[in-house]
Order: sequence, then structure tokens, then C-alpha cells
Amino acid sequence: MQKFDAIVVGGGPGGYECAIRLSQNGLKTALVEETELGGTCLNRGCIPTKTLLHSADIYHDAKNGAPFGVSADNVTFDYAKIIERKNAVSKQLSNGVAFLEKSHGVTVFADHATLTDRQTVHLAGGEDLTCDHLIVATGSSPARIPIPGVDLPGVVDSTGLLNMTTCPKHIIIVGGGVIGVEFATFFYRLGVPVTIVEMLDRLLGPLDKDVTSFVEAELKSCGVELVLGVKVESIEDGLKVHYASVKDGAKGTVEGDVVLMAGGRAPNTRGIGLDTIGVKMDRKGFVEVDGLCRTNVPGVYAIGDINGKMQLAHVASAQGLLVADHIAGKPCKQLHYERIPSCVYCNPETAMVGLTEEQAQATGRDVGVGTFSLSGNGKALTMGENKGFAKFVYDKATDEILGFHIIGPRATDLAAEVAAVMECEGTVAEIGRTVHPHPTVSEVVMEAAHVCHSTCVNAPKPRR
Amino acid sequence: MQKFDAIVVGGGPGGYECAIRLSQNGLKTALVEETELGGTCLNRGCIPTKTLLHSADIYHDAKNGAPFGVSADNVTFDYAKIIERKNAVSKQLSNGVAFLEKSHGVTVFADHATLTDRQTVHLAGGEDLTCDHLIVATGSSPARIPIPGVDLPGVVDSTGLLNMTTCPKHIIIVGGGVIGVEFATFFYRLGVPVTIVEMLDRLLGPLDKDVTSFVEAELKSCGVELVLGVKVESIEDGLKVHYASVKDGAKGTVEGDVVLMAGGRAPNTRGIGLDTIGVKMDRKGFVEVDGLCRTNVPGVYAIGDINGKMQLAHVASAQGLLVADHIAGKPCKQLHYERIPSCVYCNPETAMVGLTEEQAQATGRDVGVGTFSLSGNGKALTMGENKGFAKFVYDKATDEILGFHIIGPRATDLAAEVAAVMECEGTVAEIGRTVHPHPTVSEVVMEAAHVCHSTCVNAPKPRR
Repeated sequence: MQKFDAIVVGGGPGGYECAIRLSQNGLKTALVEETELGGTCLNRGCIPTKTLLHSADIYHDAKNGAPFGVSADNVTFDYAKIIERKNAVSKQLSNGVAFLEKSHGVTVFADHATLTDRQTVHLAGGEDLTCDHLIVATGSSPARIPIPGVDLPGVVDSTGLLNMTTCPKHIIIVGGGVIGVEFATFFYRLGVPVTIVEMLDRLLGPLDKDVTSFVEAELKSCGVELVLGVKVESIEDGLKVHYASVKDGAKGTVEGDVVLMAGGRAPNTRGIGLDTIGVKMDRKGFVEVDGLCRTNVPGVYAIGDINGKMQLAHVASAQGLLVADHIAGKPCKQLHYERIPSCVYCNPETAMVGLTEEQAQATGRDVGVGTFSLSGNGKALTMGENKGFAKFVYDKATDEILGFHIIGPRATDLAAEVAAVMECEGTVAEIGRTVHPHPTVSEVVMEAAHVCHSTCVNAPKPRR
Repeated sequence: MQKFDAIVVGGGPGGYECAIRLSQNGLKTALVEETELGGTCLNRGCIPTKTLLHSADIYHDAKNGAPFGVSADNVTFDYAKIIERKNAVSKQLSNGVAFLEKSHGVTVFADHATLTDRQTVHLAGGEDLTCDHLIVATGSSPARIPIPGVDLPGVVDSTGLLNMTTCPKHIIIVGGGVIGVEFATFFYRLGVPVTIVEMLDRLLGPLDKDVTSFVEAELKSCGVELVLGVKVESIEDGLKVHYASVKDGAKGTVEGDVVLMAGGRAPNTRGIGLDTIGVKMDRKGFVEVDGLCRTNVPGVYAIGDINGKMQLAHVASAQGLLVADHIAGKPCKQLHYERIPSCVYCNPETAMVGLTEEQAQATGRDVGVGTFSLSGNGKALTMGENKGFAKFVYDKATDEILGFHIIGPRATDLAAEVAAVMECEGTVAEIGRTVHPHPTVSEVVMEAAHVCHSTCVNAPKPRR
């Protein structure tokens, strides 16, 4: 029986980074992963979808070069090749993780793990491993919505869709959250008709309403059909998706050849022995953890999607590093989830940090808002992509940044600045005072900060 | 004789923003601009070149879609149309400035101004204006290198080149600074043969050597001919550019149909009465100013390229806002030039803030360096643009950021994060602790911070 200081179960962005940091911290570490290293993120989530979106961008730009003085005939895409490239990118990154683990001296087991007690991991291959510290990072899978017809051919979840090598003719996307909107963007930019069916009365529920209205208008103007505020009741061969209005029960049907079920992700807590060792889960099935990702069982941690704190790859990674440092007795700070950005790769991109305007108002503070339009940004205009805005939500009394919302080119990268300033406990004024390079899209962050203080010179004088 | 509280001479990014802020601060303000509002930046510099570069990107991507599963026939560009779009973008932004000035109540005079005394501005049209505060923001023009042949047809400066409506067949660029490298990038990406002739033994002299080596290698691999360490002696009809090696005097000649003279920019100090009113200039011809951009003449300020502090549009703007707030008696902080980013729009983009590694070493501090390669960035890989790196130069004793250097996609926008953290007097550790969104290019900034502290999990274990 091999003995380790720490064993990490699950090789996604939480687990693989945790294992390396544990090893850096001097612990003899094992990582057990039953499928591909890199987990959902690298193989069935973030990376594959961004790879697809980039191909769609290339296609879209090649077809629409005329305003830029560029012309091309017969612009076409080869769907199978797009998928092939996506697979190659995932493979390269997954191999990269294997290389990193080896370089840092982590022992990787390609096997299914079951926890037999809080210090023992049983591998499906037969071997038992023991450890002092156990980190569970088994991630999540697409949630299954139990309605008639979900098993019909052509009805897929995001994993299934990523494996399809032929392009849909008309895709129905059930679920207007991040996953749904990103796939919608990929397909409409390839010229494929798209219908989104969503239960809420708006897309991307948790985002700021200014952003969600913008995204909805943009998708509609690009021909995406939005059917909001309806519950899908069944799917019929054909494929026909039958729905009923949440408000008044009015029925309707949309038809397509592929249906993507994009109704969120459920934690992977089954079949790994969490119940055997007595790990507590909440009503939604997520593992309950404290601020250091400790479960109720001493020595057992749960990081990433499985604890449901914030289902994002970078959160899983940050939790993994935190846990690894905590186990090693290093000084470490708990995560401030309200400073962690989240992104949606629609077109243009959008990102947010902290509270929406509505959430901020609900805190009872004296909340201010400053919004600057991308139409006033020179760099965005040179790119022909000057749609969108940056918006600060802040505390008027302290100038503290409560939330930041941005939609526009490079928005996902621009959120990092605000997150970093929040980490430094900086203010809106400090962002405004930072000399941002010209001409860059980043200037909109500075201008939005100026708007907060009525000192923006690149927007018309506000009417009183 | 019209009387103003403040008159700004020159409507570039320094002057136009200064005038609006003065007006916001309650001063009756005039702005005098003899050509186009927006100055060099909007009309003959930053914006036009970035617009051209974007067309070149579109062309390049359309031609090279195969790896992304996209194909196109007969990809061509229409040079005249590219120039036409460039003009339209400039025009739109320049009109925007006129609109902003009007909105904020600034009186704009489209005229040439001469200072007759420190409170009086004479307009070429005949009128005299008086004021309490005078801000000179007349900018700079391409420097003329006095060698035989510079007046030959086909020999142009950046302004001349931007006005050409036919594409060069082979362009010789004299000067391997920012302007030279950006035009080189535009042309090689359109498939035009390019030769850069530079007196120093490297391109982009003031940048960190790791970056300049990278840019040189990249340009060479894209077919750009680099003739470094030579002085141009004459240009002969043809066009033949004759040069001699700085080291040993060895002669050589390169031939092309267009020669761009890109040897820096000289301040516009002549013909505006600076000498009449006794404004002091330094040996290089720049107006001498203090930390608040005050000249030696009371009530007279000089902002932007004319004071030579840092010839960048965003520096001019920041100085303009500072001066406007200072004049209005508002609390204002002097600029920390070592926190101001500068950018080069080569491919991939590059940006820097603060000191190069060499400069930092020269301060005598205990300097550390952390570099993270773009090859380890998932988002960059999805874009097929995973070349480049991010590099921190920092003080090991205090963890203070002394310099930051980045080359890669979106690099110019990513510099803003580091500038903002420097403005907050944050540390490398705080950047490392900031949870950066995944998958974004911005993660390389965080990873480079981790490298500084030997805690990077996304790079192989360093060899001891």
C-alpha cells in the first residue's frame, strides 16, 4: 500500500494545480484522474468552447472584411476540421498538465478512485493508497432535465455537442445561461439558425441587467430567436421542443435538428465513497465546506465545482492553491468571492466582478453607478467593435468598488484590472487616476471611473 | 477682445481634454486648433496606424484560416479602401472631439495662434484673446533627418505615408523605433516586402531586451529585413538608401520604391511666440516644465509632446487633466511617470510599465525577475497566438513592482492592470493573489507574479 502525504482525487483545474502546489510545498503527493487530465475545463468546457468560438470569429471576419478593405471569395468552414482543432488544443493542454505533474514530482494514477476511509483511496485497478490529507476535486457534469424525449437522437448535452462532427442545421438551445449563450454565439456566427429557450424572462440571469439587455438585443439583431419565460415540457422526434409559458401556460413549439440541453451542471458526488466516509452535502448535493474548503470530515477537503461555491475553473484553481498552502501550514488568505471575475464569451465578450447594481442597492448602501460607452473608445473604433460599455457600481461614501460590469472587445481580460485593484483594496478614484495606455480598450475602465466622479472628459456633459 | 479664464493652444489629446476639464472646473475656456481637433494622435498617429493595422489583421487572418477550419479564395485587399477607412475613423473621432468641446461649453477657434504676451493670444484671423491661464499643447511633428535625398519623391515621413493611396512595392523604413516597427508590421502583414534600417544595434531601443530580441526574431521570421547598427548617408533616386556601419564604416545599399523616414518626432515650438514671451526651452528644443507642467513664465503651462517628458498621447491627456485641476485649485497628484504604460502595436502587441531589467539592476536594488511564457496560456492557444511572455522586474526586499513587460495578444490592454496596481502601491504578491478569470490571456500576468515567488504551478519546475 503506497503512502502519500496528500492525495488529490480529480485532475481538473482545481485538482491538478492543488497537487502541484502540494508537491512544491514539500508534500509527497498523488493525483488520481480517471479520464483526461485538465478535467471539464480543458476537455469539455472552457477551452474547447473558446477554441470553437475563435474559429467562428475567423470565419465571421473573413466573410465581413469589406469595411476593412479586405475581400475574399467562397468563405467556407469545415465543421469537422473545427472540431478536430478543438480536440488538438485540448489534447495539447491535457498533455501539458501531465508534463507539469511529472516535472513537479506528483505521482499520477489514471484510475477511478473510491474513498474507503478518510485516509484511504481505493483504485479501481485494485491498489489502495493512504494519505494524511485528502482533497476531493471531482468536478461536475451537465445536469439532466427529466423531461420526455431527452434521450432522443439529436438531443445532446454540452459534452455530446462538443463531440459531434457535423454542423447542426438549426440548433435549439434549452437554457440561456453561460453555456447556452456561448454555444449560441458559436453557431450564429457560423451562420447556423439558433433558438434559445429559457425559463427565466431574461438570459444570463446572474449578470447585471444592463449587460443582459445588451446581450439579448445583440443576439436578436444577429438573428438568434429568443423564447424566454417558458418551461420545456417535452421533446418530440423531429425534433420538436414543446414548451409552456411560465406566466400563463401558453403552449408553443420550436423545431430544429439538434437540441442542446444546457441547464447547468451538477456536482460529481456519486460513486466515490463520500457517503461511506460521512462527508456532508447540502440539499442541492454540493459538498459543504468552510472558508478553507474543509469538509466536516477532518483531513478531507473539497474544492472546485463539487462544493458549489462558484462553478468556475479559476475558482477551483484558487481553492486548490489555498488548500495546498493551508495543509503545508503556509500563511494563506481566504478567498474573497466578491472579487473574483466571471466571464461570458458571447460577442462582444462580457465579464463581471462583484455585485450587480441591483444587488448593491439591496445592501442598503449609498450606491453610485458610472457607465462609459465603448462608442467613445478610439481603439474599439479602429477594430470596428465599438459596441458595449463599462460600468462601475460603487459605494459613494467610501469610493469602494462593489461591482464592475463590462461588455466589449477584450472585456474578459479587462476584468482582471478591476479584480486586482479590489484585491489591493483600491478605490474607483485610483482606477481613474491610473494613466491607461492609449489607444487601448482598457481606457473605458478609466473613463467609467471618471464618470462615477463626474470628471469624464470623453463623454458629453450629463443633463441635469 | 474676448476674455477667457483659460486658453489652450493645440487640440490634440493633451489640449482637448485639458480644455474640457477646465470647463468642468468652472473656467471660461477657449481652445485654439489650426488643423484638425484630436491632433497627431487622432489624425496622423495612434488612431490611423491602429486602424491600418486592424485591416492588416483582417487580411492576414482571412488568408490564414486553414488551421482554424476556415477557407477562402482570392483574399485580396484594396489599399485605397484601407486608407479611406482610416480617414473615416479619424474624421469620426475628430468630429467627436468637436462635439465634446461644444457639449462642455468650450469655445473652439479653428485658427493659428501666436502668443503676444503671457495673457494674450493673437489669432491669424486677426482677433486677440486674453486669459489668466495659458496652456500650450502644440505637440510634435516628424523630425527631419538632414541627409541628401530626403526630398526625393517617394521619400515620406509618417504623415506623408498615411496619405498615400497606393501600396508600396517594397518599403524601406529608416528608424526602428515604435513608428518604424508599427508600419513595418502593417506592411509585412499585407505581404509587402519591408526593410528596416536602424542606427542602434537593436530595434525599439528603450524596451526591455527580452522584448526587443523577441520582436526582432518575430519580424525576421515574417520576412522583414533588418539592417541594424548603420547610419543612413544618402538616398538616391531609384530609390536607393545608402548606409554605413556605425562600427566599422562598411557601406551598403538597400532598394525600395518608398522610403519612410521614421526618426522620431520634434516639438512644435516655432512660430507660436514662445520666444516672445520668454518661455525657456532645453537643448533639444523641448519646453522646460516642472512636475505640474509649469513653464518658467507664470501662468503659462506646457503639456504633451512639446515638453518632452514622455511623448505619448495618454501622457499628454494626463498632464492636461492635471493642469486643469491644478489651475482650478483642486487637489491633484503629480504624475508618476514610472507607472505609465507604453505600447507598441507590433504582432503580437507589446507593452511595458516602469523600468527594464537593465535599468532596475542599475538602481542597485536587489532585483528579481519572473517571466511566464504565453505557451502556457490556454486562451492564447485557443486563439493560435500563444507566442510571447509576461515579465515582472521587482524589488526582492519589498516586493515592489519596478517594471512589467509583456508581449502577446491583448498585451497593450493587459498593461493597464499592472499600472493600476502600481497606482495602488500594490505588490507582486497582490497580483499573484488576484484570482484572474479563466480562460483569459490576463492569467499570464498572475502566473508571472507566481514565478517571482517560485509558486507557479503552470510552468515546469525550474532547474536549480
